[in-house]
Amino acid sequence: MSIIPINNLPEIAPNDNLAQLIIEQSDCEGIKIIDGDILVITQKLISKSESRTKKLSEVIPSPKAEILSEKINRDPKFIELILSESIRIVAMDTKRGLIITETNHGFICANSGIDSSNILGDDEVSLLPINPDLSASKIRETILEQTNSTNLGVIITDTFGRAWRNGQTNVCIGIAGLHPIKNYKGLSDDYGSILTSTEIAIADEIASASELVMGKTNRVGAAIVRGYNFDNTQIGDSSDLIRDSAQDLFNKGEFL
Amino acid sequence: MSIIPINNLPEIAPNDNLAQLIIEQSDCEGIKIIDGDILVITQKLISKSESRTKKLSEVIPSPKAEILSEKINRDPKFIELILSESIRIVAMDTKRGLIITETNHGFICANSGIDSSNILGDDEVSLLPINPDLSASKIRETILEQTNSTNLGVIITDTFGRAWRNGQTNVCIGIAGLHPIKNYKGLSDDYGSILTSTEIAIADEIASASELVMGKTNRVGAAIVRGYNFDNTQIGDSSDLIRDSAQDLFNKGEFL
Repeated sequence: MSIIPINNLPEIAPNDNLAQLIIEQSDCEGIKIIDGDILVITQKLISKSESRTKKLSEVIPSPKAEILSEKINRDPKFIELILSESIRIVAMDTKRGLIITETNHGFICANSGIDSSNILGDDEVSLLPINPDLSASKIRETILEQTNSTNLGVIITDTFGRAWRNGQTNVCIGIAGLHPIKNYKGLSDDYGSILTSTEIAIADEIASASELVMGKTNRVGAAIVRGYNFDNTQIGDSSDLIRDSAQDLFNKGEFL
Repeated sequence: MSIIPINNLPEIAPNDNLAQLIIEQSDCEGIKIIDGDILVITQKLISKSESRTKKLSEVIPSPKAEILSEKINRDPKFIELILSESIRIVAMDTKRGLIITETNHGFICANSGIDSSNILGDDEVSLLPINPDLSASKIRETILEQTNSTNLGVIITDTFGRAWRNGQTNVCIGIAGLHPIKNYKGLSDDYGSILTSTEIAIADEIASASELVMGKTNRVGAAIVRGYNFDNTQIGDSSDLIRDSAQDLFNKGEFL
């Protein structure tokens, strides 16, 4: 299996045809997308192409955002965006100015996934795509059409923190063309015993693998995972990766 | 970057020289370990070679294990092992028979990392290595000696569940020759802005990447990650991946 960065993509502007730009650049780099590839794209590129950026100076904070902003000592305009992009606050550390929310999509992450890295200007932040599965699906369709492929996976990633473990990892926030979970339940292991509870979040593992070639400072926002044999008859979306809150023993965090 | 499975390793027995067997098999498969490789090995192989397996029939449950066993309706002998391999119960779901513990090493995972998949016999379970960093370090030293390499990373993995997200992923439980975290703090992003909080758990991402070629049913317990340029002047151990519980907003789970 190989993981190939797509280097030197141009700066992405609103309404750019990202799929087209990725095809052109991968051709140009001599790594033409082929059948069976999984194309991994960071949220930042998608959000830029879908105009999911905001100028903080143009945000008007609500009274709720103002109150919270004083409590955790962060810009009320930033807090306003965090609140409007989420359905609830899951946990908070007022001393460190840390807010963990459940986003409108159901993802649990810091600051509703809003950040200002790898985006032009001090005032601008990027929000998560409104429907990352739809974004993945549209890109997949364009690429299938343009390249005469029939089998392509597309995964959109973001960098999330985790409970219990230091360091962030890339995870899947949008997917098309394959199922994000590989289910081993009922299959035999190498000794003939039936596996009872093994379900692997392959989409998150693919997202993590791609981060290793993309990094945060290399102007690489897309990569191709080649040689991973996925089952393209099983498809799903990013909601399959979200644990039902009633089943989640760590759904509620602490307010420190 | 490529991820190459080491296929057809023999069944590992107690006191086997696992490093030697991996060198031989990778040579035999024509994928000789070279300078700059990261060798990824699953916990199962390490545990087998280090006699970290137990026959459930030989375990004598403590009164505490007996009480818990009734509460969650699981074998008291299995509960006894879970308790002896952990320093505390973090969360529990009595209906689903689920116990999340903090292991003696400080990892938070289901059943103290004890399981019965890919191990011979119905009665036998594998425990995590006592000191997975030391296990990684010993394997690294043997391979450096035998192959005249000077630069090799070794990562030992296990499959853990996560808060909030469905599906398990492989994570690093032992490491030698590189640091598990890549710290971007203070570096400039592609637009010249200083990154303030980006720390990537590359060891977990490498562990996840390797799972994609190993799977659970292919008799593949080791893989080589080739072409990932790691900084071998920065080394660390698996404790660098464990979030300080005082800083962790999700350290305490619920008892359902």
